[in-house]
Amino acid sequence: MNEKAFSSSMKWIPETYVNLALEAKKSRESKITHLIQQRKVPDEGWNEEEIETLLREWAMMDTNNFSSNVGAGEREARIYSKLVYRRHFGAGHGIGRSGDLTEVQPKAAGSSLMNKITNGLILDIIRQSGIRSATDCFLVPVATGMALTLCLLSFRHIRGSQAKYVIWSRIDQKSCFKSISTAGFIPVVIELTQKGDELNTSVTEIESSITEIGPENIAAIMTTTSCFAPRGPDDIPTVAKLCQRFAIPHLVNNAYGIQSSKCMHLIEESHKTGGRIDAFVQSTDKNFMVPVGGAVISGFDKSVIGNISKTYPGRASSTPSTDVFITLISMGMNEFKNLLKVRKDNFVLLKSLMNNSGDGKSVSDLGSKLFIRGISGARVVTGKGSKVIDQHEFLRWGSHSDDTSVPYLTAAVAIGMTKEDVYAFIKKLDKVLETKMKKL
Amino acid sequence: MNEKAFSSSMKWIPETYVNLALEAKKSRESKITHLIQQRKVPDEGWNEEEIETLLREWAMMDTNNFSSNVGAGEREARIYSKLVYRRHFGAGHGIGRSGDLTEVQPKAAGSSLMNKITNGLILDIIRQSGIRSATDCFLVPVATGMALTLCLLSFRHIRGSQAKYVIWSRIDQKSCFKSISTAGFIPVVIELTQKGDELNTSVTEIESSITEIGPENIAAIMTTTSCFAPRGPDDIPTVAKLCQRFAIPHLVNNAYGIQSSKCMHLIEESHKTGGRIDAFVQSTDKNFMVPVGGAVISGFDKSVIGNISKTYPGRASSTPSTDVFITLISMGMNEFKNLLKVRKDNFVLLKSLMNNSGDGKSVSDLGSKLFIRGISGARVVTGKGSKVIDQHEFLRWGSHSDDTSVPYLTAAVAIGMTKEDVYAFIKKLDKVLETKMKKL
Amino acid sequence: MNEKAFSSSMKWIPETYVNLALEAKKSRESKITHLIQQRKVPDEGWNEEEIETLLREWAMMDTNNFSSNVGAGEREARIYSKLVYRRHFGAGHGIGRSGDLTEVQPKAAGSSLMNKITNGLILDIIRQSGIRSATDCFLVPVATGMALTLCLLSFRHIRGSQAKYVIWSRIDQKSCFKSISTAGFIPVVIELTQKGDELNTSVTEIESSITEIGPENIAAIMTTTSCFAPRGPDDIPTVAKLCQRFAIPHLVNNAYGIQSSKCMHLIEESHKTGGRIDAFVQSTDKNFMVPVGGAVISGFDKSVIGNISKTYPGRASSTPSTDVFITLISMGMNEFKNLLKVRKDNFVLLKSLMNNSGDGKSVSDLGSKLFIRGISGARVVTGKGSKVIDQHEFLRWGSHSDDTSVPYLTAAVAIGMTKEDVYAFIKKLDKVLETKMKKL
Amino acid sequence: MNEKAFSSSMKWIPETYVNLALEAKKSRESKITHLIQQRKVPDEGWNEEEIETLLREWAMMDTNNFSSNVGAGEREARIYSKLVYRRHFGAGHGIGRSGDLTEVQPKAAGSSLMNKITNGLILDIIRQSGIRSATDCFLVPVATGMALTLCLLSFRHIRGSQAKYVIWSRIDQKSCFKSISTAGFIPVVIELTQKGDELNTSVTEIESSITEIGPENIAAIMTTTSCFAPRGPDDIPTVAKLCQRFAIPHLVNNAYGIQSSKCMHLIEESHKTGGRIDAFVQSTDKNFMVPVGGAVISGFDKSVIGNISKTYPGRASSTPSTDVFITLISMGMNEFKNLLKVRKDNFVLLKSLMNNSGDGKSVSDLGSKLFIRGISGARVVTGKGSKVIDQHEFLRWGSHSDDTSVPYLTAAVAIGMTKEDVYAFIKKLDKVLETKMKKL
Repeated sequence: MNEKAFSSSMKWIPETYVNLALEAKKSRESKITHLIQQRKVPDEGWNEEEIETLLREWAMMDTNNFSSNVGAGEREARIYSKLVYRRHFGAGHGIGRSGDLTEVQPKAAGSSLMNKITNGLILDIIRQSGIRSATDCFLVPVATGMALTLCLLSFRHIRGSQAKYVIWSRIDQKSCFKSISTAGFIPVVIELTQKGDELNTSVTEIESSITEIGPENIAAIMTTTSCFAPRGPDDIPTVAKLCQRFAIPHLVNNAYGIQSSKCMHLIEESHKTGGRIDAFVQSTDKNFMVPVGGAVISGFDKSVIGNISKTYPGRASSTPSTDVFITLISMGMNEFKNLLKVRKDNFVLLKSLMNNSGDGKSVSDLGSKLFIRGISGARVVTGKGSKVIDQHEFLRWGSHSDDTSVPYLTAAVAIGMTKEDVYAFIKKLDKVLETKMKKL
Repeated sequence: MNEKAFSSSMKWIPETYVNLALEAKKSRESKITHLIQQRKVPDEGWNEEEIETLLREWAMMDTNNFSSNVGAGEREARIYSKLVYRRHFGAGHGIGRSGDLTEVQPKAAGSSLMNKITNGLILDIIRQSGIRSATDCFLVPVATGMALTLCLLSFRHIRGSQAKYVIWSRIDQKSCFKSISTAGFIPVVIELTQKGDELNTSVTEIESSITEIGPENIAAIMTTTSCFAPRGPDDIPTVAKLCQRFAIPHLVNNAYGIQSSKCMHLIEESHKTGGRIDAFVQSTDKNFMVPVGGAVISGFDKSVIGNISKTYPGRASSTPSTDVFITLISMGMNEFKNLLKVRKDNFVLLKSLMNNSGDGKSVSDLGSKLFIRGISGARVVTGKGSKVIDQHEFLRWGSHSDDTSVPYLTAAVAIGMTKEDVYAFIKKLDKVLETKMKKL
Repeated sequence: MNEKAFSSSMKWIPETYVNLALEAKKSRESKITHLIQQRKVPDEGWNEEEIETLLREWAMMDTNNFSSNVGAGEREARIYSKLVYRRHFGAGHGIGRSGDLTEVQPKAAGSSLMNKITNGLILDIIRQSGIRSATDCFLVPVATGMALTLCLLSFRHIRGSQAKYVIWSRIDQKSCFKSISTAGFIPVVIELTQKGDELNTSVTEIESSITEIGPENIAAIMTTTSCFAPRGPDDIPTVAKLCQRFAIPHLVNNAYGIQSSKCMHLIEESHKTGGRIDAFVQSTDKNFMVPVGGAVISGFDKSVIGNISKTYPGRASSTPSTDVFITLISMGMNEFKNLLKVRKDNFVLLKSLMNNSGDGKSVSDLGSKLFIRGISGARVVTGKGSKVIDQHEFLRWGSHSDDTSVPYLTAAVAIGMTKEDVYAFIKKLDKVLETKMKKL
Repeated sequence: MNEKAFSSSMKWIPETYVNLALEAKKSRESKITHLIQQRKVPDEGWNEEEIETLLREWAMMDTNNFSSNVGAGEREARIYSKLVYRRHFGAGHGIGRSGDLTEVQPKAAGSSLMNKITNGLILDIIRQSGIRSATDCFLVPVATGMALTLCLLSFRHIRGSQAKYVIWSRIDQKSCFKSISTAGFIPVVIELTQKGDELNTSVTEIESSITEIGPENIAAIMTTTSCFAPRGPDDIPTVAKLCQRFAIPHLVNNAYGIQSSKCMHLIEESHKTGGRIDAFVQSTDKNFMVPVGGAVISGFDKSVIGNISKTYPGRASSTPSTDVFITLISMGMNEFKNLLKVRKDNFVLLKSLMNNSGDGKSVSDLGSKLFIRGISGARVVTGKGSKVIDQHEFLRWGSHSDDTSVPYLTAAVAIGMTKEDVYAFIKKLDKVLETKMKKL
């Protein structure tokens, strides 16, 4: 309803009431204008109706929703099922243009606007979560592993065909390793070194590998921030300095690092102290509590990030962007920061509770026992098996190290986990361990 | 409500009525069981409520929806926004497992089942649309261009590092060409030859390129079925025979070909006459009237398709699969075939109407004129400009040929276009052309 | 998004696209303004998204949705469940004010506006369906029977306490009869007279009853238009003349008469030829294909209808109004008229098909047989039983007559029934009748 | 999905995962069976998906949703708009049968079941909120005032036509008074007596009225529990004893009394100490935080309540029942009791804060000032005007008394009001009062 409709309403409804309603509408609209101008996550979240109304308005800006439009191309966002139409709020053209995922699609002004705003909100979150110096980012609707592949494919164009190697500080996550081989590079695995209970980056090994292979033959060095104990985050600042020194692209897998101030700090510090990081990549579901489906590629140099966004051939699903948009706007910055705080508290809680659990007994079948009892995500690392991925054999797969001797259980405190979850987990764990002991 | 709940209802409702309701329920349930067993598109479509109820049931099979589940991993499908939760019917774990897009995810039995069923339905459609010999397919939630890239990346593992070239029969679609360079290969562009009004595959040029470069240095040959006139579909059968003879992978871009019996026939025939096609790739939005976001990779050899599905590093969005599932089930096979028939009829209609339009006058600014008047998708090919994509220059970009001399307008009759659309398009076109003539 | 938001979008999206979108928005908005000004059913229906967006906008005009509102009364439309909130599009205040169902509620400008517009649309439909002279109507969210009761309760205030009788031309619909006794009046049942196959109004009986009881002792005469054969519509014009002559209120039960041009014509004609009709009452579900829940009270004299709307003590549910609003706007006048036409055609079809069915055999258990086989609504009138309702005994209940001798089956062709339904009904009917014959 | 569908799934998904999902399903189903058997509000609320799924299942039990059903009656719940269909979860037949609002509708087993369960849940709430001795209740989808009218109309059948009077302890709520005149009775207004700051029931006046008019001429005595200060709740126990002694029906207006333990206690006590209460009536929106639209009629004698439910002529909207069902099930008994507790606390808070507000200055235009500033529901009682309702003049309308001399402001703490609301109200109130003072 525009102002004319409001004044027409006065035919039926007293002017005072219409004017009060108009005031209320104006205050809602000013929030929208502010959002479009600033691309910042609002402090206080919006309610569902406000968000859905805006998404529908944006969809109405796409040609497929113009009442007079006739689509005469092969791709006109005709949507057969109304159920599908509704779950996309009427949007059908996806995001991006054949040449670039962040470009404006002429047929889809609204979807393009949504995409631009969402990328702006994510950049705001990244900055406010610790990487103040970040200058650009975009959501790509693929897995984190695939997003790493895209970065590597983009690097190939810069590095030339002789750059066949990617140096990789070992982390036992399959898709992370596969991202290298899928991109067609030869991984050079750098084993970790143990320091006390923790597994750390072998910076010296990396450096000697560089020298050995020759910097010009290396497409990139890949490090990881977020991981399960006992593997610590890589020593990003030192590796970044090596990359700077040898002029090698540095790609950081920061999969679930936005929720961790430590991970974010490592990246920001690396950049501020003159180290080189070309791109750092995050998973949307792991950091923003949305369904699986997207990754965020971000960095300090707009042209590097721009080149990566130009690598993706074609238009892509707008769903992951839409999910993140909805979530960040409904959450608000205050609640996001609160969730990060709660996560930190729960981490401390879980750590103290787990120290009191179990007794070092055999844990080999603990994982499936927990799964059947309703614990998902806890992993038992026996350090016994080895695994071959794309012709490369990893000893003691899952433990990040060839030398692991003690089997152990890992559990994560991710964003959104509640204190009640922590206690429920410990309760079930104790129950399973007890059962086990009784059997002995 | 299970049978116990039904019989409890007899406390309040007469037995006869409860029993009639139970019968109705059983008949709905038998449709579901049949679907799961057969993975065939039903002849008659289901209604929205049946579909949504099933999707919710499947989501309830994922661990994040078990009332007693505690997620202790870094990825537990916690969904912050209820609005997001609802649009995904409660599913959050995406599809696939880190190693393989078609594998079952232990935390997500329901999402995995949905994915399996959907891939089965698509295979059914492909077969019933003309490629009877197809044996496998899967939906990958990326653009068609990116799906072609994935196929090429997978071929690299088989072809070895010396296979640096991809032979490509020119088609002026940006993302199609980019799919090669993104994958890190060197495109060898084979210009088309003009035969009458049509542009055809230069099979002899392809053959001489093979001999020149050496088959072992070629990662794949890429051809295209679906395109705009005057470019005809490639001569897939002959190229397939070359691929067979020289043992080179053959990748077919069948982007919007499922809706065209001609395109489908070319692929089936190539296979049946002993030619080689490793994979053929389709866009989901262009063929199934869903929002942009997915592609279908399909073929005649399960192991080839399986290798491609193992290439994607990580889990992916389930949205494109869900959209296709909803659409095919709500459409039913009868309606799908009817839509194909209507498309064919409208194609004939548009062709005859366009012959009566215009008079060969200059069309240079026709495209934007049409766009402003609400015609999207019609393209004006002036054959004047040239374009550089990834360092490769294309003369007369858009015309598929260096030799185009006459500017022309293209328009497509895609699935879902109605007869009314055809007439509305012609009406607006005539209006714009008239305006133009008046100005002269 | 207001115009400022649109122009802010130009920061991210080219001006041309934003302007096209703004044009599209303006054309949607002008439809809304037109609707509010005219209160006419549009010729062409609107789509769901347009309707839902408008309903939400209206809800946002109610105080409970003002972001800054604090409710300090006992009734502030706080809605606990978001699921409930959504199904009401955010509206919670119902319709009306304690004194009058059609009055504006100060806390609910939007709900009040919706109510006003809907009543206007219904009046438009009534006029266009044949009662051109109607001047006022309102939807009351109660059953048709209860709406008749409300009319009678309102008449009591005019007629005085000595007017204890309601003369009623017998129709065997329970709630119709109950509407009189619930209102506290004594029904005077006028039996019908048989003419050929049809049961007709005994106008002479009515007249002699009036004289016998005394006009001043009669609160109203109640007649019925819509009914099942063999009972014909009452002779409304003649009764209306009697009412005029004796100055007695005339209440017409037109329950499912809007869909029948014959019923509508009878009412219009009565009025135009100087007869008296105070109010005629319709069911919303029976005429507008909405869920059960509302009735429309309408008439030729605004003050009479206004008095009835002031009779209802309190505010009422807005759901029936909302359902009718959605339905009429999404249907459009053209489709409504088309549905009336289809109904007429199907009536002729069913009549001819039923003449060929059966053979006059016993039909006593036919009703339940049909029900079990999935025919609802067909009624078997055996004319055997009698029924006592509120102390009044009806012989041969269901047959509208004490004299019915032949059992029969009735079936209706209501608005929305399709030709396929007609054939399916006949098919099942034939099957059941055959089964029966085999048993003999 | 039934068990067969689950076992068919094992073709695609490992048995273990299917079995875990089946377990989860069984536990959900057992909650449903329990609900149907017990008709008790669960301690812990259900989530939206569980509730919506159940409502849809129930709708599927109605004939209009049987795939093979053919409706051949005039009322077959054909729903034109899918938007309307969805907001009713597929149900269309309303509740009740022509003869009785609580009866089972043969075409609508599911809707009838929903209605029965909901009435059971409400009875559970009434008992747990303090009226332990209540034996029956039903939701009637009309305003509280109209529900009171229905009760009175029902009493007429028992009391006979000479019982023309209803004795009414004055409360200045328009619809309460109108409920008597709409029902066609003559109200006998009993003025309140002032005791300190409070206005109390004039029991002696009531008794002398009874004697004066004659008990046999009185249809009912109507009292009120819930009201704004300074009017206190009526002395229900004493009036109930009078009703018992003189054998006069006693109708209690308990509009927003469920949320107040005091009101509930008064009713329970009256019954337990041998007093007579035929029915007590509540508003659904005021007590259960649902949209306006329903009332609950309840009592201690099943046959009395049954007679009232038989008074309503026709079938009625199922929306108010559905809203209450959703709300109570999603709230759970624990949360309901918590809300009552919070309300009590906030009442104490508001009382103490209001004592510190203002200074007894003139409040005449305070009401509209507050409304414009976003306070709805606060009422200013100037005690100056008089009002005529249905020919009866009330002096100082709004103050419940002819003798009110001091103007005052009332505000309510209703269920769902938060502490933040209380503070926001006081803040705005202070601001308005200050403004006023400055002007003086």
